[in-house]
Amino acid sequence: MRSVNVTLLGCGTVGSGFVSLLARNSDRIAARESIRIDLKHVVVRDQLKERAGVAPALITADVERAIDRSDVVVELIGGIDDARQFVREALTSRKHVVTANKRLLAHSGVDLYELAQVHRVRIGFEASVCGAIPVVRLLRAGVGDELTSVSGIFNGTCNYILTQMESGVSYDEALAGAQRLGFAEFDPWLDVSGEDAAQKLRILATMAFGEAGQLAPITTTPIDGIDTSDVARAARRGCVIRQIARAIRVDDLLELSVRPEEVPLDHPFARVRDEQNIVTLATAHAGEITLTGRGAGAYPSASAVLSDVVEIARG
Amino acid sequence: MRSVNVTLLGCGTVGSGFVSLLARNSDRIAARESIRIDLKHVVVRDQLKERAGVAPALITADVERAIDRSDVVVELIGGIDDARQFVREALTSRKHVVTANKRLLAHSGVDLYELAQVHRVRIGFEASVCGAIPVVRLLRAGVGDELTSVSGIFNGTCNYILTQMESGVSYDEALAGAQRLGFAEFDPWLDVSGEDAAQKLRILATMAFGEAGQLAPITTTPIDGIDTSDVARAARRGCVIRQIARAIRVDDLLELSVRPEEVPLDHPFARVRDEQNIVTLATAHAGEITLTGRGAGAYPSASAVLSDVVEIARG
Repeated sequence: MRSVNVTLLGCGTVGSGFVSLLARNSDRIAARESIRIDLKHVVVRDQLKERAGVAPALITADVERAIDRSDVVVELIGGIDDARQFVREALTSRKHVVTANKRLLAHSGVDLYELAQVHRVRIGFEASVCGAIPVVRLLRAGVGDELTSVSGIFNGTCNYILTQMESGVSYDEALAGAQRLGFAEFDPWLDVSGEDAAQKLRILATMAFGEAGQLAPITTTPIDGIDTSDVARAARRGCVIRQIARAIRVDDLLELSVRPEEVPLDHPFARVRDEQNIVTLATAHAGEITLTGRGAGAYPSASAVLSDVVEIARG
Repeated sequence: MRSVNVTLLGCGTVGSGFVSLLARNSDRIAARESIRIDLKHVVVRDQLKERAGVAPALITADVERAIDRSDVVVELIGGIDDARQFVREALTSRKHVVTANKRLLAHSGVDLYELAQVHRVRIGFEASVCGAIPVVRLLRAGVGDELTSVSGIFNGTCNYILTQMESGVSYDEALAGAQRLGFAEFDPWLDVSGEDAAQKLRILATMAFGEAGQLAPITTTPIDGIDTSDVARAARRGCVIRQIARAIRVDDLLELSVRPEEVPLDHPFARVRDEQNIVTLATAHAGEITLTGRGAGAYPSASAVLSDVVEIARG
């Protein structure tokens, strides 16, 4: 049985979900893969805070030593500055990295992928886009045909707000509800402006369309201008409003947008409610492939992180 | 640029779809993967039959020579006897194999996987289950959490018949329609008895649940006893009838079934119409992941074959 040592950076919602999910799955993974995933260190800022389910002996504030003693570094700190420094440090020390940090990838992804390549290690980022939905893995594998578009609902907060407004709840009340439930970003403007979905769209478009996806500008329209009368008007036309992210290739041009759109009730996007996410890959010849699942939350995101750790551990 | 030589066995609907799809995608694959997929031989029984889109110089009846000169053998003959012989021959000669042949895998899969392992080559079988839907790839990668069930609509012919019957068409007329459209099996009893879906369920259950999936018996109930009055009765209860395949783990037991079931209209399975397929993977902690797409047809199946060829070519 091979052993793979993991250091976890950050122990918030997804981090503690990862610790718990790994504990529940490590025997199964060992039996199936003949690999023991060993959580060696959990690096946190506040060492004194009690963390249910995390053995106190794992907790440390010594990032350098924790990275040095691991094979895979799981970055779940979020934000850009510290996360980038630690991820760079890990890659430079030839440690594989798994991250859920879409902001970091949107900001410094190209540099980090290059750094990983130079040091011959891998970066797993399935958890950075649409939680439990394995779309990054699928785009990396390829679907055996040319893609003509990638579209879907990538932001659970906006989708929660828009589905809540269908029962007459105001925009402000619905946003407050999303914040209470804990799935709005720390700055909800990242959600409602379209910026969060745009970061995910950038990651998927680059995988689907290469450099064109990296370079094309993204048009974003916030959802905060929508009120209950807009939702009611859409309903009278047999539609609902959804925040749709879309990368569509027209001849040699790639158009990228995130905006609220009216969607007919019988369209798959209309049926996606609350914090569910959906991604549709349209192919040139083989029709559409659609994936749905939970786009956020401790366990859905942690499952994506764990699937990356297992894939890297397999070698 | 690396070259990978491919021999295609069989040039029926999916086979000629593969030839055409490869021609449309090979430059894209070369640019993206730095791998040139070279179709070297197309082995057919009737060499004189004209085949649109297939260069006559590729056509041969000499199986042994064609296998010998390839890196990857794509088996699209179907059936069991010849297909098994050629696949065994390919594996023994250390050629990778890609197949869409679910009957062969249900019948001799365990032997063939062993043979592949002994000779250190791979068998790709994404196209054997649910056409363009990449569920085999996803189950092989794992979803980062324990699975509790795998379920869905795996047979396009039954689904076409059952959705047609919702508009008052009789079972016999609907079946004749599926045969006219060319997506019924050569013996439609394989479809309507549940046998075809059961073969796919066996493949997925074995991937999801290991030996238990291989060994558990499958209960099948044919759909041919259903008439339009059953469909109308279901409609009055707000339901439709679908042929549902299901592998569900209850404690240490695995229950496998394929049978017509009433499904409420707001359930994702109810919205799958005609020859579309759907697969839902339920996880212990991360919710459900659902995939939909075209379950049959020349290009959807060929795209799954091509995705396997590319994955094997990558090494």
